[in-house]
Amino acid sequence: MQILEEMGKKAKQAALELGVLTTQVKNRALEEMAGALLSREKDILEANRLDLQAGRESGMSAALIDRLTLDSKRVAEMAQGLREVAALPDPVGEIVAGWRLPNGLEIQKIRVPLGVVGIIYEARPNVTVDAAGLCVKSGNAVILRGSSSAINSNRILTEIIAGAAERAGLPAGCIQLVPLTDRESARELMRLREYLDVLIPRGGAGLIRTVVEESTVPVIETGVGNCHTYVDATADLDMALEIVINAKCQRPGVCNAMETMLVHAEVAEEFLPRAAQALRERGVTLRGCARTREIIPDAEEATEEDWYEEYLDLILAVKVVEDLEEAIRHINKYGSKHSEAIVTRDYRAARRFVSLVDSADVYVNASTRFTDGGQFGLGAEIGISTQKLHARGPMSLRELTSTKFIIYGDGQVRS
Amino acid sequence: MQILEEMGKKAKQAALELGVLTTQVKNRALEEMAGALLSREKDILEANRLDLQAGRESGMSAALIDRLTLDSKRVAEMAQGLREVAALPDPVGEIVAGWRLPNGLEIQKIRVPLGVVGIIYEARPNVTVDAAGLCVKSGNAVILRGSSSAINSNRILTEIIAGAAERAGLPAGCIQLVPLTDRESARELMRLREYLDVLIPRGGAGLIRTVVEESTVPVIETGVGNCHTYVDATADLDMALEIVINAKCQRPGVCNAMETMLVHAEVAEEFLPRAAQALRERGVTLRGCARTREIIPDAEEATEEDWYEEYLDLILAVKVVEDLEEAIRHINKYGSKHSEAIVTRDYRAARRFVSLVDSADVYVNASTRFTDGGQFGLGAEIGISTQKLHARGPMSLRELTSTKFIIYGDGQVRS
Repeated sequence: MQILEEMGKKAKQAALELGVLTTQVKNRALEEMAGALLSREKDILEANRLDLQAGRESGMSAALIDRLTLDSKRVAEMAQGLREVAALPDPVGEIVAGWRLPNGLEIQKIRVPLGVVGIIYEARPNVTVDAAGLCVKSGNAVILRGSSSAINSNRILTEIIAGAAERAGLPAGCIQLVPLTDRESARELMRLREYLDVLIPRGGAGLIRTVVEESTVPVIETGVGNCHTYVDATADLDMALEIVINAKCQRPGVCNAMETMLVHAEVAEEFLPRAAQALRERGVTLRGCARTREIIPDAEEATEEDWYEEYLDLILAVKVVEDLEEAIRHINKYGSKHSEAIVTRDYRAARRFVSLVDSADVYVNASTRFTDGGQFGLGAEIGISTQKLHARGPMSLRELTSTKFIIYGDGQVRS
Repeated sequence: MQILEEMGKKAKQAALELGVLTTQVKNRALEEMAGALLSREKDILEANRLDLQAGRESGMSAALIDRLTLDSKRVAEMAQGLREVAALPDPVGEIVAGWRLPNGLEIQKIRVPLGVVGIIYEARPNVTVDAAGLCVKSGNAVILRGSSSAINSNRILTEIIAGAAERAGLPAGCIQLVPLTDRESARELMRLREYLDVLIPRGGAGLIRTVVEESTVPVIETGVGNCHTYVDATADLDMALEIVINAKCQRPGVCNAMETMLVHAEVAEEFLPRAAQALRERGVTLRGCARTREIIPDAEEATEEDWYEEYLDLILAVKVVEDLEEAIRHINKYGSKHSEAIVTRDYRAARRFVSLVDSADVYVNASTRFTDGGQFGLGAEIGISTQKLHARGPMSLRELTSTKFIIYGDGQVRS
């Protein structure tokens, strides 16, 4: 497609220039972008209204309408987000390692931008601004591809921040939005290997699967979270109760919420009735294995599919396990490698769990809800990687960089 | 395909066990593998003879026959390679970073194996042993897929080292060879996403392109090297001559050899005749731009394709450039992002070149031939990444790992 090819070329050129700008210039651009958002709030809300109207007409659900909606507070939050990114340390230029070889060559491994980052995302228009801010700060050009339902909002947001960035001295083309929202243009973007260095999908499991399947550009898989909490035989059951309530109920619609609770058989009779009552008081539906249902007879019956499910809702799968080993096997088999927790007082169980559970974030005696760039103290977050290549767990500025070897010599040749 | 699915399952299970073995056990296995290769040299050479015979009958070129050939010396080198890997530090378990959050949570970012590594490679049977050794040391299970021309050699090598590894206490299935060599089995391997964490192609540009295009498993692109040396206006021309001769002639068939030489117009008249003579004495054919051919009239004419070409042969493309900026633009446009060098005495030119050239390894006043894990002091090498995601430049043990966040708490929940 002509248009994507053109965008790619422009982005690649912009990336070369952006990659060597100083932190000062990039920070000034972020401030300028924040200011421009605030001063053009009226235009933003107007464009957003068009999207909301179209959404309502097409029968969009209340939850999706809510995610699509912008108001003064959300515009202010986007601007504030950009300012927070400006305040974060610049990862570019960090010398990650360096040494001298016996022949006198001096090697530096230095942090550089990835180049051109593609983001494919669903309804929330704030991703447009958040992702662009992180890319600018880490010296990357970005090509954004939002959904059709947010196209008017995304267009005005991109116009505002790209204009402000350019006024502040960033190269034209460093922030671009794909103006098309048809499937063909998404597919084209996934094959823009000549220009894109990485593609990050942000959205539901379906979107992520499509991108992984179809992209020839390297992908960072993000976000699907089928998270577990395992209540061990030696757990402090009061602590366990607090943790499972928090992990399930504090915000059920997000990727780091618990979806399955595993309970050691030795404490199931004591713990499950308490947990069931507390969870139900908070509106949670339980789907249990056979042993769970012996203890909580009115729990629904869990099927094989439930163990794989990311409900993103007030539903919890519950399984009684024979021992730690069964819990670990279950998590490694059914989980999505996002976040898992053990509640235990046993030293060996804690060590075995963190060592054998094959997930990005593994907790002892804490809620899985902490898996988040902000909570981890990394600053803003571009997503949570559930793959092992390049980055794993919450990704922030550093995960938007690569490295490069620079070798200083005095005429050395290889013998 | 049933068989690949089975291999994947076995590898994944093996990876879980292998990932938590101590360095001692892994090193013992590497020593055992080395010993087994030496003691079964006769069987290895016998199997290799079958491949060589088939190769000769099918009219394989002398160069390929040479790469396929094993002898006592090469078997000893493979064994020695395994012992050297045993002597390298174990990357697994390194705490890459760690900090305490205000709420008391303690976060550790810890190095872990990738899991299951797939390697697709061409004729050289030593890759079977080298790759398996690096994977074992870094705690990864490996699925090897060599070419049909080396199938007998690869089979016996895998049988020997996998057997030795198992005897030394490594889980069954941690080293496996795909017994099929048809296209369909390669394609299947590239889509074994459920079991493979990464796929590394090692071979020619065609193989790498196919893997990048068809794989749904994350790929690390390696090896294609269209490397440049730029002789700046201020270069010490004696040094430049030594460097270009080394970069082109010391071993022309490898990826870090120079393929294009760029010469600043101001020194072209002085440098080019000297360089041409020295290179021709070493059998190099020159293909020049128009300005080059004004100075070296009998150079062949370079076409647009020559600037993209990785000759891997005693052929050199030569271009006269107006200035540093044109050299940088040329490299970023035509290069393969592998290794490039500038020869200069100018501080600013050196700084601009290393900062603006977008390649994995950028040299000042040294030969590009140094791009190599061994030369860099990284120990053995699994390949040279020319992509920016995960790893860039020579990849050794650390590049075969991922990280994992472990979070220790005392009952913390998110508010």
